[in-house]
Amino acid sequence: MDRIEALKKKAFEVKSFDGFLVTSEVNLYYFTGCPGLTSMLIPKTGKGTIYVYNVNSEQAKAMTKGFNIQMLERGQNLIAIITKQVKVCKIKKLAFDMLSFEGYRELAKGLRGHTRLKPRSDLVGELRRVKDEKELQLMRKAAELTNTGMKVAYETIKPGIKEYQVAAEIEYAMRKRGSWGTAFETIIASGVRSAFPHGGGGTQLGGGCTDREIRKGDLVVVDMGAAYQHYRSDITRTLVAGKPSTKQLKLYETVKASHDKALQTIRPGAKAKDVDSAARKVIADAGFGEYFVHGLGHGVGLEVHEGPTLSSLSKDKLTVGNVVTDEPGIYLVDFGGVRIEDTVLVQKGKPECLTEGPYGLEARS
Amino acid sequence: MDRIEALKKKAFEVKSFDGFLVTSEVNLYYFTGCPGLTSMLIPKTGKGTIYVYNVNSEQAKAMTKGFNIQMLERGQNLIAIITKQVKVCKIKKLAFDMLSFEGYRELAKGLRGHTRLKPRSDLVGELRRVKDEKELQLMRKAAELTNTGMKVAYETIKPGIKEYQVAAEIEYAMRKRGSWGTAFETIIASGVRSAFPHGGGGTQLGGGCTDREIRKGDLVVVDMGAAYQHYRSDITRTLVAGKPSTKQLKLYETVKASHDKALQTIRPGAKAKDVDSAARKVIADAGFGEYFVHGLGHGVGLEVHEGPTLSSLSKDKLTVGNVVTDEPGIYLVDFGGVRIEDTVLVQKGKPECLTEGPYGLEARS
Repeated sequence: MDRIEALKKKAFEVKSFDGFLVTSEVNLYYFTGCPGLTSMLIPKTGKGTIYVYNVNSEQAKAMTKGFNIQMLERGQNLIAIITKQVKVCKIKKLAFDMLSFEGYRELAKGLRGHTRLKPRSDLVGELRRVKDEKELQLMRKAAELTNTGMKVAYETIKPGIKEYQVAAEIEYAMRKRGSWGTAFETIIASGVRSAFPHGGGGTQLGGGCTDREIRKGDLVVVDMGAAYQHYRSDITRTLVAGKPSTKQLKLYETVKASHDKALQTIRPGAKAKDVDSAARKVIADAGFGEYFVHGLGHGVGLEVHEGPTLSSLSKDKLTVGNVVTDEPGIYLVDFGGVRIEDTVLVQKGKPECLTEGPYGLEARS
Repeated sequence: MDRIEALKKKAFEVKSFDGFLVTSEVNLYYFTGCPGLTSMLIPKTGKGTIYVYNVNSEQAKAMTKGFNIQMLERGQNLIAIITKQVKVCKIKKLAFDMLSFEGYRELAKGLRGHTRLKPRSDLVGELRRVKDEKELQLMRKAAELTNTGMKVAYETIKPGIKEYQVAAEIEYAMRKRGSWGTAFETIIASGVRSAFPHGGGGTQLGGGCTDREIRKGDLVVVDMGAAYQHYRSDITRTLVAGKPSTKQLKLYETVKASHDKALQTIRPGAKAKDVDSAARKVIADAGFGEYFVHGLGHGVGLEVHEGPTLSSLSKDKLTVGNVVTDEPGIYLVDFGGVRIEDTVLVQKGKPECLTEGPYGLEARS
């Protein structure tokens, strides 16, 4: 409820809205602690209403207090129901976090002449990016599980093993110790695949692993994380199966230096783009600038990608309680890629790496 | 490329569009076989254009042929670039599969007076719901891995084990045999949690498992699937840790009879809502009608939920090559739930259950 009060303050006092519609599943969980809700309408005055389909309604009743709970039957028109309630609450200026364009069009039509609509997911994002103690406790646990997984990667990777077999061992180790699932599709990208930043295998179409057999001398990018309760962690290490070559070592040392440089600049008050540029300079100075093809990092929490964003285009400023990744990389097509990533807590003074796991380019199997 | 030709036929010959914009990541993969693309603009005449960010461009070049590849730099305005290309191609009536309302608004504004826009994801959905031989091969493999996982569930569940430990063993077994990942968050919902159709644990906010310890006599709903390459499978069994009670057996037998009845009605030409209603009748006749709180099933393929939909509201008709779930359930709050689900291929004559795994209420550990 403190989180809803904080949103009310932001949306109704600082900004001049008199209603907020939450439809994002993750935001709904953030505010209520209950999964499976459909929408929540928060008026400036009076009780909020939670909309939930029949299939999840018993759970919602058990887990949320202080709201009207409106059950939805399959086939009911949710937007029509919300439109009505907005009018009942006499909301004149409604902010919302997320709507499909069909949903927006219908809501706007129903409220024409009555209520102005404005997308303001940023207001929720600003809250979510500052983690409280309870959230940090869950994120530390997720990071601890993640570190265990990465240790297993170092012990497992060797010539002859397939990418998915490495993922099997990592995920099993994390699951056995209490992980609620992976934070995202585990990426094991070996050999030439390591030059594709997101691996290109897996089920999420952006990442994952394939049945490629890891060969002696291959670079292997391992990018993975555990989730604990609904909080996530994110780590990347790059390993070589066998003895690294001089060029592989050079790439590794450059990326590590870039990663460490960024860590030195991650401070409350720092501009996110300055952190990105500090890391980028190390890689550019070593002659690999054009091969660092993505931003330095992103926030992590209930989602594996959230605010703040660490990139040259970011307008974000770091504050105490942000949790961000520091993940520079160099990707040479037909040779391979190296990326090193940690999940880092911004706090007074030096930041804290929540992930640690082993470093170094050599597998230990 | 055959798939793009089929879309062109549907959109440009049957319907009167002269351009199609694909932005859904899954649809992009379906049409190109390449992950990590951002958009694709298909004009009625001439070459299509694929838009891809720098970070994925090498992969796109390696994996797609016969398109213009346009690389995007971070910070470039994709909608503005697409707007321009729509005009260059002289497209007057553009269909698209998916746009955020911000994207829609911007595109509509840029094309005002030039091009009419229309959401037609259904045209792609109609293609995707009819699986070809290559897709079925991958779905059979995914189902085979899924069956292995369910066998492990029967061998693992016993009083004293925690939900996430069961998931650990299931996922490890599937991964070791070549799974590219899970089709969705593995659901292990035990005891009172089994009455929540989606479990309510896990990282996806709708499912998953918790650290709840399974107790003697608990109902345990196990809903899981493997993915192979990018294709998915989906199975549910409900088990009892220990000896089932008379009431648990009654629920199980009712749900099993409903599941089997649906199988008898799954035929090419059948209306999806009739299949749903055949299954629903069995449960209603046993007196549990109000506790079957969801639709009977959904299509499975590149996504774990796609067309056709088997529910009382569905207007779909089944055709050869559809792959759908058959998953009736009964959920009694404070007692527990039972769901039985298979992934089923619609073909001439009897349907084929791609998933089989064991049946029965008793764990074998």
